Amino acid sequence: MPELPRDSVGLVTPQTAHFDDPLLLVCGKTLPSYDLVYETYGTLNAERSNAVLICHALSGHHHAAGYHSETDRKPGWWNTHIGPGKSIDTNRFFVVSLNNLGGCHGSTGPSSTNPETGRLWGPDFPMVTVSDWVNSQVRLADHLGIERFAAIVGGSLGGMQVLQWTLSYPERLANAVVIAATPKLSAQNIAFNEVARQAIRSDRDFHDGWYAEHDTLPRHGLKLARMVGHITYLSEDAMGTKFGRELRFDDLNFGFDVDFEVESYLRYQGDAFSTSFDANTYLLMTKALDYFDPAAAHQGDLAKAVAPAQCPFLVVSFSTDWRFPPSRSKELVNALIRSGKSVSYANIDSPHGHDAFLMPEPRYQDVFSGFMNRIAKQLGLKPAQAQEAAHAF
Amino acid sequence: MPELPRDSVGLVTPQTAHFDDPLLLVCGKTLPSYDLVYETYGTLNAERSNAVLICHALSGHHHAAGYHSETDRKPGWWNTHIGPGKSIDTNRFFVVSLNNLGGCHGSTGPSSTNPETGRLWGPDFPMVTVSDWVNSQVRLADHLGIERFAAIVGGSLGGMQVLQWTLSYPERLANAVVIAATPKLSAQNIAFNEVARQAIRSDRDFHDGWYAEHDTLPRHGLKLARMVGHITYLSEDAMGTKFGRELRFDDLNFGFDVDFEVESYLRYQGDAFSTSFDANTYLLMTKALDYFDPAAAHQGDLAKAVAPAQCPFLVVSFSTDWRFPPSRSKELVNALIRSGKSVSYANIDSPHGHDAFLMPEPRYQDVFSGFMNRIAKQLGLKPAQAQEAAHAF
Repeated sequence: MPELPRDSVGLVTPQTAHFDDPLLLVCGKTLPSYDLVYETYGTLNAERSNAVLICHALSGHHHAAGYHSETDRKPGWWNTHIGPGKSIDTNRFFVVSLNNLGGCHGSTGPSSTNPETGRLWGPDFPMVTVSDWVNSQVRLADHLGIERFAAIVGGSLGGMQVLQWTLSYPERLANAVVIAATPKLSAQNIAFNEVARQAIRSDRDFHDGWYAEHDTLPRHGLKLARMVGHITYLSEDAMGTKFGRELRFDDLNFGFDVDFEVESYLRYQGDAFSTSFDANTYLLMTKALDYFDPAAAHQGDLAKAVAPAQCPFLVVSFSTDWRFPPSRSKELVNALIRSGKSVSYANIDSPHGHDAFLMPEPRYQDVFSGFMNRIAKQLGLKPAQAQEAAHAF
Repeated sequence: MPELPRDSVGLVTPQTAHFDDPLLLVCGKTLPSYDLVYETYGTLNAERSNAVLICHALSGHHHAAGYHSETDRKPGWWNTHIGPGKSIDTNRFFVVSLNNLGGCHGSTGPSSTNPETGRLWGPDFPMVTVSDWVNSQVRLADHLGIERFAAIVGGSLGGMQVLQWTLSYPERLANAVVIAATPKLSAQNIAFNEVARQAIRSDRDFHDGWYAEHDTLPRHGLKLARMVGHITYLSEDAMGTKFGRELRFDDLNFGFDVDFEVESYLRYQGDAFSTSFDANTYLLMTKALDYFDPAAAHQGDLAKAVAPAQCPFLVVSFSTDWRFPPSRSKELVNALIRSGKSVSYANIDSPHGHDAFLMPEPRYQDVFSGFMNRIAKQLGLKPAQAQEAAHAF
């Protein structure tokens, strides 16, 4: 049997927490009860002071690190940054990673049964916002007996949840790591999300969200949504380097089959996603992105909005990220500084666009692990075991 | 009756030229016969030396300037730049503007009848390339008795046609004006086109391109294609300034109706386009864009590819154009200079993204009219009538 990589957290098993306390949502509706599926990596120390919460992005889930079986070919989505000796060092930290409400990987969402009707939630699943997710994550923390996280960490939409934590529950986290995020979406960001939504909702197999009851999937719509999304995750240069104008076959076909490698790649990515991700969940996630805007309640003054935050921040952006460009991170950094917060900011040179937050990049790892190591030191965390692996790079 | 603006060319009437000489296309197929619909503005001088050809972009057509009726509310698409006293001064120049082959505004295209079958061409219309368009435009020039254009001018996909003219028929134009164009599409450009094509082709009303015979239109697909396109025509900043996060109504709706103004705008633009433009034409135009790459036959050496060009060039780009950014124009400029050509280049500061080539912008107009005025002077062109209107700005 092949061995799992020694710098990974190894085999992990998702767990499920059930909550019977109704959750009042920002939209005004109430979730009567719900499940949250989560994984943990590392060991919670006796003081319960070494917990790190991971918040996931648009199409993410609880499986952030390690493997689900010995034969798993792909580890969790942030395996590069979570593990023994990695930026989030599981020899010292106890890492919690969950699937958000409304998700399609085990937590209660559109594909779950609505206890009040006995029917799938489907499109009746209520709109969930970043605040709602944070409220549900607090309950998960209570469930796990974690009064205060050593750090809460997230990239992209995950970073927005981190920011919301510092505003909704400032006393319950000691540090905030906000990566490749933005304090609010731009008109262009919303525009791309709206294209994705229209693609899904105009697919004739969508059936107003009741596709499951019609034994079908809005495959074409979800494929298009993913293709558009994918373009915005990569930088123009990264796409150029990866594909250029390379032809898939020897000649142009003068038809509508694949001519260029980039077409083949996008079709493949879109097809794979279209049968593995739930369309109603995708719609909900894009709306949570669009709605996030903590400054809105303060006449657009972000410095006022972040006033409740208490903990130090690490903010990271990537030079070629055009989805949430460095300028949006700087907006947040400026507001935090104006509001008197402690904030470290690094703009990382990377050719990989928005996707860079998922990737290894030496300076990114130095900054990320440097910040996490300082937290470990301040908390007096000792490695749970001798640190075997150096950084994998 | 309301008077038409005095700085416009006034009322214009499209004309049609019929061609019976079969046209061999790059794809290997032959168009047995075809029509080209076109308009002209101004007067051809006795020497036939003052003709300017306008090449249109993706969704453009022959109606570039003036009005089709006294009650027309909108003039032609480039009315800002074509007219008495404007950059392309119709008091001096004789302007020819056509609808390209494969188009849906009167020239032979998928909505025309295939003379060999008596059925609509539909998806059987052969793939047309930029070179094919230029070959057909030469025949239009012959038909009009124009041996040599004083200038050929185009923006975006139109600019690519201008570049191809200088390579295929260098002796038939005295000047080339290439605006907001690129010598070849990037992987990202192709990716966006592929999303548009997939949107159209996966619409169940597309019927493999035979939608007309099914009395329907792939409205949803064409709407999505236009929405994606529209995002790439505007700069992020322009979208932000125009829409920001403005709500359409007072409150968030926590559903999938329109929340933000930008969603409303995109839906409106998409809907309008989805019933006014032909889907098969849209597909053809995007492929013509993707395929254009004159350097490909020269191992990617653009300087070698442009060697046949003889005339002076004006190349114009716009600072916030991210569809065909200034770097792509500079690529062309560098190749022209390396190849020993005469080239004037201006990168215009504009907030309007790719769409800037359609808009008034003082420096753009100065550069454009400066170049055209020099041509007029060199040719000894005198105003056909006293120039009444100064620039409208």
